[in-house]
Amino acid sequence: MKNVYGHNLTVTLFGESHGQAIGAVIDGIASGIKVDEDFIKSQLSLRRPSGSISTARSEEDNFKILSGVFGGVTTGTPICIVIENQNTVSKDYSDIEGKARPSHADFAAFMKYGGYEDYRGGGHFSGRITAAIVAAGAIIISALKAKGVLIGTHIKECAGIADKNFDNITDDIELLNTKEFAVLSDEKGEKMKENILKAKEEGDSVGGILETMVIGMPAGVGEPWFQTIEGMLSLGLFSIPAVKGVEFGMGFAFADMKGSEANDCFNSENGEIKTLTNNNGGINGGITNGMPINFSTVIKPTPSIAKPQQTVDFKNNENVTLSIKGRHDPCIVHRARVVVDSMTALTLADFLVGRYGTDWLRG
Amino acid sequence: MKNVYGHNLTVTLFGESHGQAIGAVIDGIASGIKVDEDFIKSQLSLRRPSGSISTARSEEDNFKILSGVFGGVTTGTPICIVIENQNTVSKDYSDIEGKARPSHADFAAFMKYGGYEDYRGGGHFSGRITAAIVAAGAIIISALKAKGVLIGTHIKECAGIADKNFDNITDDIELLNTKEFAVLSDEKGEKMKENILKAKEEGDSVGGILETMVIGMPAGVGEPWFQTIEGMLSLGLFSIPAVKGVEFGMGFAFADMKGSEANDCFNSENGEIKTLTNNNGGINGGITNGMPINFSTVIKPTPSIAKPQQTVDFKNNENVTLSIKGRHDPCIVHRARVVVDSMTALTLADFLVGRYGTDWLRG
Amino acid sequence: MKNVYGHNLTVTLFGESHGQAIGAVIDGIASGIKVDEDFIKSQLSLRRPSGSISTARSEEDNFKILSGVFGGVTTGTPICIVIENQNTVSKDYSDIEGKARPSHADFAAFMKYGGYEDYRGGGHFSGRITAAIVAAGAIIISALKAKGVLIGTHIKECAGIADKNFDNITDDIELLNTKEFAVLSDEKGEKMKENILKAKEEGDSVGGILETMVIGMPAGVGEPWFQTIEGMLSLGLFSIPAVKGVEFGMGFAFADMKGSEANDCFNSENGEIKTLTNNNGGINGGITNGMPINFSTVIKPTPSIAKPQQTVDFKNNENVTLSIKGRHDPCIVHRARVVVDSMTALTLADFLVGRYGTDWLRG
Amino acid sequence: MKNVYGHNLTVTLFGESHGQAIGAVIDGIASGIKVDEDFIKSQLSLRRPSGSISTARSEEDNFKILSGVFGGVTTGTPICIVIENQNTVSKDYSDIEGKARPSHADFAAFMKYGGYEDYRGGGHFSGRITAAIVAAGAIIISALKAKGVLIGTHIKECAGIADKNFDNITDDIELLNTKEFAVLSDEKGEKMKENILKAKEEGDSVGGILETMVIGMPAGVGEPWFQTIEGMLSLGLFSIPAVKGVEFGMGFAFADMKGSEANDCFNSENGEIKTLTNNNGGINGGITNGMPINFSTVIKPTPSIAKPQQTVDFKNNENVTLSIKGRHDPCIVHRARVVVDSMTALTLADFLVGRYGTDWLRG
Repeated sequence: MKNVYGHNLTVTLFGESHGQAIGAVIDGIASGIKVDEDFIKSQLSLRRPSGSISTARSEEDNFKILSGVFGGVTTGTPICIVIENQNTVSKDYSDIEGKARPSHADFAAFMKYGGYEDYRGGGHFSGRITAAIVAAGAIIISALKAKGVLIGTHIKECAGIADKNFDNITDDIELLNTKEFAVLSDEKGEKMKENILKAKEEGDSVGGILETMVIGMPAGVGEPWFQTIEGMLSLGLFSIPAVKGVEFGMGFAFADMKGSEANDCFNSENGEIKTLTNNNGGINGGITNGMPINFSTVIKPTPSIAKPQQTVDFKNNENVTLSIKGRHDPCIVHRARVVVDSMTALTLADFLVGRYGTDWLRG
Repeated sequence: MKNVYGHNLTVTLFGESHGQAIGAVIDGIASGIKVDEDFIKSQLSLRRPSGSISTARSEEDNFKILSGVFGGVTTGTPICIVIENQNTVSKDYSDIEGKARPSHADFAAFMKYGGYEDYRGGGHFSGRITAAIVAAGAIIISALKAKGVLIGTHIKECAGIADKNFDNITDDIELLNTKEFAVLSDEKGEKMKENILKAKEEGDSVGGILETMVIGMPAGVGEPWFQTIEGMLSLGLFSIPAVKGVEFGMGFAFADMKGSEANDCFNSENGEIKTLTNNNGGINGGITNGMPINFSTVIKPTPSIAKPQQTVDFKNNENVTLSIKGRHDPCIVHRARVVVDSMTALTLADFLVGRYGTDWLRG
Repeated sequence: MKNVYGHNLTVTLFGESHGQAIGAVIDGIASGIKVDEDFIKSQLSLRRPSGSISTARSEEDNFKILSGVFGGVTTGTPICIVIENQNTVSKDYSDIEGKARPSHADFAAFMKYGGYEDYRGGGHFSGRITAAIVAAGAIIISALKAKGVLIGTHIKECAGIADKNFDNITDDIELLNTKEFAVLSDEKGEKMKENILKAKEEGDSVGGILETMVIGMPAGVGEPWFQTIEGMLSLGLFSIPAVKGVEFGMGFAFADMKGSEANDCFNSENGEIKTLTNNNGGINGGITNGMPINFSTVIKPTPSIAKPQQTVDFKNNENVTLSIKGRHDPCIVHRARVVVDSMTALTLADFLVGRYGTDWLRG
Repeated sequence: MKNVYGHNLTVTLFGESHGQAIGAVIDGIASGIKVDEDFIKSQLSLRRPSGSISTARSEEDNFKILSGVFGGVTTGTPICIVIENQNTVSKDYSDIEGKARPSHADFAAFMKYGGYEDYRGGGHFSGRITAAIVAAGAIIISALKAKGVLIGTHIKECAGIADKNFDNITDDIELLNTKEFAVLSDEKGEKMKENILKAKEEGDSVGGILETMVIGMPAGVGEPWFQTIEGMLSLGLFSIPAVKGVEFGMGFAFADMKGSEANDCFNSENGEIKTLTNNNGGINGGITNGMPINFSTVIKPTPSIAKPQQTVDFKNNENVTLSIKGRHDPCIVHRARVVVDSMTALTLADFLVGRYGTDWLRG
């Protein structure tokens, strides 16, 4: 079950960057859920490169739903979504066969698949495959929203610039979900874009940090040991190419705090129990405590850069110099946002279906 | 499969802090592996509190192997290890029933289990349960070692003090595995202990960061999407109470790097392909690339502190002030180390058995 | 997950016939379920050999619940039940090491575990391990009963004698659950026992067929393809040693029927939809249709017989004659009954928890 | 993981009879395996209705491989195979919406999916979905063949006529795999066809039994408890619509045998250990013993018949008379054969990959 994600509500992924198509199968979803194709399209457009800060490869991501939807609602049987590859310029990549792009999966894939892997454009490792995750995630995001579970992610930091912090979480989530470049401060966003362009001009790339908030999750969901909310979300998030760290609440900043500063004190007001702070990001003992779920995900700088780099031609086992041509992103942080939202939705929906039963998602 | 960890080589966990016993069942292990009971004991002693910087609760952790071992070697059938609870002073906890200890799982557990949970000493959420993980992990750590896969973890940072960095990784791993307080610089270690004691005197606690290195993992192990090495390790690590963040290689520091700084260039020397740096922590595209696996895990300050804290008595839904008495740790970072090693071993062994077959671990 | 059964509600099994103990871990059970230790005892006594038609090995099966139960009810965390081995006369078996008992697992186990397996008394393959299944099953059977799901199994055929058929299913299930030798006709039961004793005197053994009825299962439970009710029940039933066939409803008799005879016509009466016949055993398309679930399980003759048999000493690869001494059953059909009930309960409860959520079983 | 089959090598199924397409995703297959599209076609043609004894619905089953195959060999990443639905005459079924076809899944599906299911032509429950299983199975059957594992199935009994028994198993398997109507005796096959046609003329249908042999499986594969070879094969076989019973070796005939007759005595000849009989169908203790795997699967009579039947219109909860028009099979036994072979291949390959590692299947 290598390319299958989840336990109760599962997503199976397939496809290569330059093959016929990519896609996903969603299994275990309740029947009777409305499938909003326009929302899927708009989510896909958030992932798609656009403007000067992205790669020039731009395709429509026309998806087809092959099964599991009848009369616009889910039937409860597996949904297969397929996105055909159209704009595949294979020749851009042909000259790098066997040359391990630094910090890419080429060499690791060669060691795993023995040279049989589809090396064109990263093959099954391509960031393009995340389009299938986004399409599947869109259906789940809609369904969760109808149940009051809302997810929002902003670019906390990018290219050396920090966005402002979440303030009114509900409003901020709503705002972020209307934006293509998801920052809370447009001013900071403009500075980020400037720095991204600067890196591009230098033939270089930048990374950043995405911060996510989820509201509306019921308390008492998650498992104490091996299926903690933190662990399962991380499992999902680390599937996203370029993610190299995940932290919840105060995360790594906990290392410099005292217990008395770090602890979230409980408070009862009008019969409702909340914590006064949310340093733990809404999770205690691996289980939701009713506060917003909060985590950050670091995205490393895009490894494909124009600058010449030393590397190895592993088919001939010799050192070579590589300058990656073709269409590449100087930054993928803003594009990764909707993939983070999608993996978050898939993970939480899986927990909720396990906790409350198959039909819960229908509402 | 909530308390079952792994796919091919699995560990099932059970037990409560103040119940009869805790334990683990290892399933899917190869036959013919030597089980070194002395090594299990010594690993358990690393987790056990000791000295002034730990809780006064100290038990022998006498384990019994009920099955799966015959004549000192594994039979290939499930190994059940049981550790009986001996030193359980329940009265220490009786006055806090229903009072949510801040940043503990009490309230989340109540929302999940509806008041039926064993609240004594944290019940199934207690850090004590990690003793079963350590016992199971010891068997796997030994087996991996025999196959050349070595794991070492140091206290990278604790109570505001940073340890020195890994230098000669092989030697450092060997050194760390002889130490009870796992630092590379004993001088820094002494300062950490001083600060821990200071926090204790203030009725407070501290956190820290553990950094792990693994050498000897073959290249080409892991899966591109949902079973990445990073994701699966994180799933395991977040099971450890108090872990709130995991990062690989440069982790969150990637946010401030350029692609040209971040990328690990490949180099072939004497026929061997390695990277010149290891910013990606030995993993590309979710798959091992043959370099040492490197990650850091943040441990939040122990939530149990003597200082009075506001909280809620959730059985009566009223605000109360809580001062946690009893035996508690001002710091668990050093004790968590062997649990991190154990979860790392279980995760990697699971991958290796899946990749190379059931008998691989026998060697 | 070799020795782990189920998806949402799981049972992990461990132990060897002549090791320290056998046992099971139940995970994913709702909190708040009463655990009736007397019922567990009485279920264990149904599995235990008794009287002249069984082996002379007879132990008390004193079980201990190590975790997951607090104040007599489940906590919702893993329940570990352990049964220590007391009456283990190893010398009975020592002379047969390496000699493959015909139709036993000895040779297959040797090929799988390479000689490291605990060969004493069949080791992990021993029918004794089913005591752990029965103990775990008893907790689930009680919980299902409280939800109106009742399971009953009779000896449909044994030693050449057929029992009478189910008539009033509810009454028959109730009756069977009071009986040690589960027949609907005591007269037929006596004849079966006579034939069993006759086989015993000849140093031989007999087999038979168990037929199970389940009432109270809601309609609409099961999955169309790979997790059909039939498939999952079979997966469980074939775990029971000596089971070599499972059929649902008319089963193999369907081969000689016409569609017009085989089809179960639907009928609505007083607003309730039922089928006029139940040839499909309560399952259509892998999913419950609200009718009683009905299946039969064939138990092969006990392979351990006193009569001399040709076999191979696989440690020396030479042909030998083997006469199995020690304490053996001329028939295990009547003892397997409660194991069939237990696996049925575990399987159906797993489906129900998946369909209706974790807490459903609490009621 | 409802529509996902297997543990190490998995197949995910999707599609509805009258939707856009059906298909399957194979995950966990080794890289470097040749994909023979002609063999896939020929396997699909065996499942496809043909001639007077089948339904008049006949489509080409043009499959497309969307991913996971590069240059004619597997890449090791997920293979998605899609078969578009072309010949979907929806009007044949429109008048039966809400009318539960007896012994079909209509009513059970309605209770499960709440009326959102695609009822046209049985939707996701349609036998047509098995085409996707056959396409996926063909790839695995080829790969197993290259490793010496051969599978053959004959129509043991159909419409009251018995085929002759397996004699020279290797030759018989080879013969069967060249035949469209898989009998060992063509004379018996002709009589079966006559009886099928007779049933068709009466507006009725017939069932039968398929018997399968597998040679070349290594000894020592399988698990003692919950993943027995018998249990896992049954899990797969019961996924096939109309299967209502599975038995291994002597199966239900064991009920009337003595232990001394039933036991398979071991014999060593020229250093090779075999059993003199194969009553246990090549499996002891859930594990292969090196003898041919042998099992039988009963297929109930096709439930769709022209004869008028009483049933319930469950949308209006009233009794109605139903005469099923449209294109239906008087017998599906011969068509089910290749589906049985496919599920067998998928199940055994999953075990082998788990036992010997991911690359084993490449050879």
